[in-house]
Amino acid sequence: MPDERGATAPHSLALTVAYDGAPFAGFARQPGLETVQGRLEDALGTVLRRSVGTVGAGRTDAGVHALGQVVSFDAFGEEPAPQRLRRSLTALAGEGIVVRDVRRARPGFSARFDAIGREYRYRIVAGEVPPLFLDRFAWHVAADLDPEALSTAAQALVGEHDFRSFCVTESAQGQRTVRRIDAIEVLAEQHLGEECLTVCVRGNAFLHSMVRVIVGTLVEVGTGRREAAWVAEALAARAREAAGPTAPAHGLTLWNVSYPEDVWL
Amino acid sequence: MPDERGATAPHSLALTVAYDGAPFAGFARQPGLETVQGRLEDALGTVLRRSVGTVGAGRTDAGVHALGQVVSFDAFGEEPAPQRLRRSLTALAGEGIVVRDVRRARPGFSARFDAIGREYRYRIVAGEVPPLFLDRFAWHVAADLDPEALSTAAQALVGEHDFRSFCVTESAQGQRTVRRIDAIEVLAEQHLGEECLTVCVRGNAFLHSMVRVIVGTLVEVGTGRREAAWVAEALAARAREAAGPTAPAHGLTLWNVSYPEDVWL
Repeated sequence: MPDERGATAPHSLALTVAYDGAPFAGFARQPGLETVQGRLEDALGTVLRRSVGTVGAGRTDAGVHALGQVVSFDAFGEEPAPQRLRRSLTALAGEGIVVRDVRRARPGFSARFDAIGREYRYRIVAGEVPPLFLDRFAWHVAADLDPEALSTAAQALVGEHDFRSFCVTESAQGQRTVRRIDAIEVLAEQHLGEECLTVCVRGNAFLHSMVRVIVGTLVEVGTGRREAAWVAEALAARAREAAGPTAPAHGLTLWNVSYPEDVWL
Repeated sequence: MPDERGATAPHSLALTVAYDGAPFAGFARQPGLETVQGRLEDALGTVLRRSVGTVGAGRTDAGVHALGQVVSFDAFGEEPAPQRLRRSLTALAGEGIVVRDVRRARPGFSARFDAIGREYRYRIVAGEVPPLFLDRFAWHVAADLDPEALSTAAQALVGEHDFRSFCVTESAQGQRTVRRIDAIEVLAEQHLGEECLTVCVRGNAFLHSMVRVIVGTLVEVGTGRREAAWVAEALAARAREAAGPTAPAHGLTLWNVSYPEDVWL
């Protein structure tokens, strides 16, 4: 891919990035707003002394966290060694962003288009006692949640389906809304001493807000407000209003993105 | 115990309280400062419509968190049912404090003097990559830490000893500095997707900053800067300067306080 100088990049670099969603207006660069991509591109500009355009594996919304977002860009061999670049970028990107890893990938590698799998995790603290340490990382559902019911209901969504009911309506217009979910798993976890249910959703790619609508829908079943069969009906309806509410952003984390082994140099 | 009205309290109440240490100048009430005890006593005053003096199991310092602090006070039977009181106090105590449980205890119960065991946990993120989600809950030690070395060195501190080397010097003056540590365990844990080492210290009671000096000392061994045998020497020296540095407050959590079963009504 030629850069602004007309040169062809001999390889690509892939950053594995963790961030706290709270202080940002989402991942994607937007003029005049604090975004993760904006901060990373500014940091890259400082280190590499040129303007750097990046591609992220997932365009997470405002408030959504990431543990393993992947961000790629063309590299021309002038960059510091990976571990040094990682340190510089973490220092320059500032509060709320940590570059966890830097890997070299083949020329033309795209964190977005080369991804073969993505995993999102959504944390829920259920019951009367509100979360304290997990307050910024979990949705508090002030009711009893049946993890079995939640997990059973989720299985209707596994496989290749048209997920039109499970995404923001405007984003679906004129778009292909078929996606493949490989697995939905519900784990009883403890973080920082507090109990939570974690909904792990693995698939090839996701529509806008898809995981949050899935979780909002499953919670309707988990609290007993809806029957498990309603989830399949909501899916079949192919209309946003057929599914449940959108769960809040701060419970969601882009957990991991996977690639074929042969992209790495 | 007679209250200001001269009445004797027919029972006591014990709150189990979690708090984020960051926004507070410590647990203990201090005029003009934001403290956990201050906020709780103000909330109790609002609910019970009288001035309420409380006793905490541990006087945690500024920045130290709690998952299971216990706070007791005399009750005269005019209070709401436990679950209702819990909700009201959580709402009134405000951001950063959650009352997790309310229990009825025998008259004259003291969260401090009736405690038979206390557990503190200290989280460390070791290595070059700084913590993101654990940033406020773990100490970042930018070096490799050997958990085995740390755990082995810790065993020299288990048992009844004079811990004068492991506390703030001024607090030790003229004080009995013998305490009993029942166990020190080092766990490899993952919280919010980030790896950490958790040092769990259980004992009957602790001196001022004792767990933080213990952790600061053990980390000297875990990083290889000191030999394991040095910990026993530091203990034997009975002088603060013989031990390692005080680990930062934000890695520490008062995890749990235990009582004899017969205190509960």
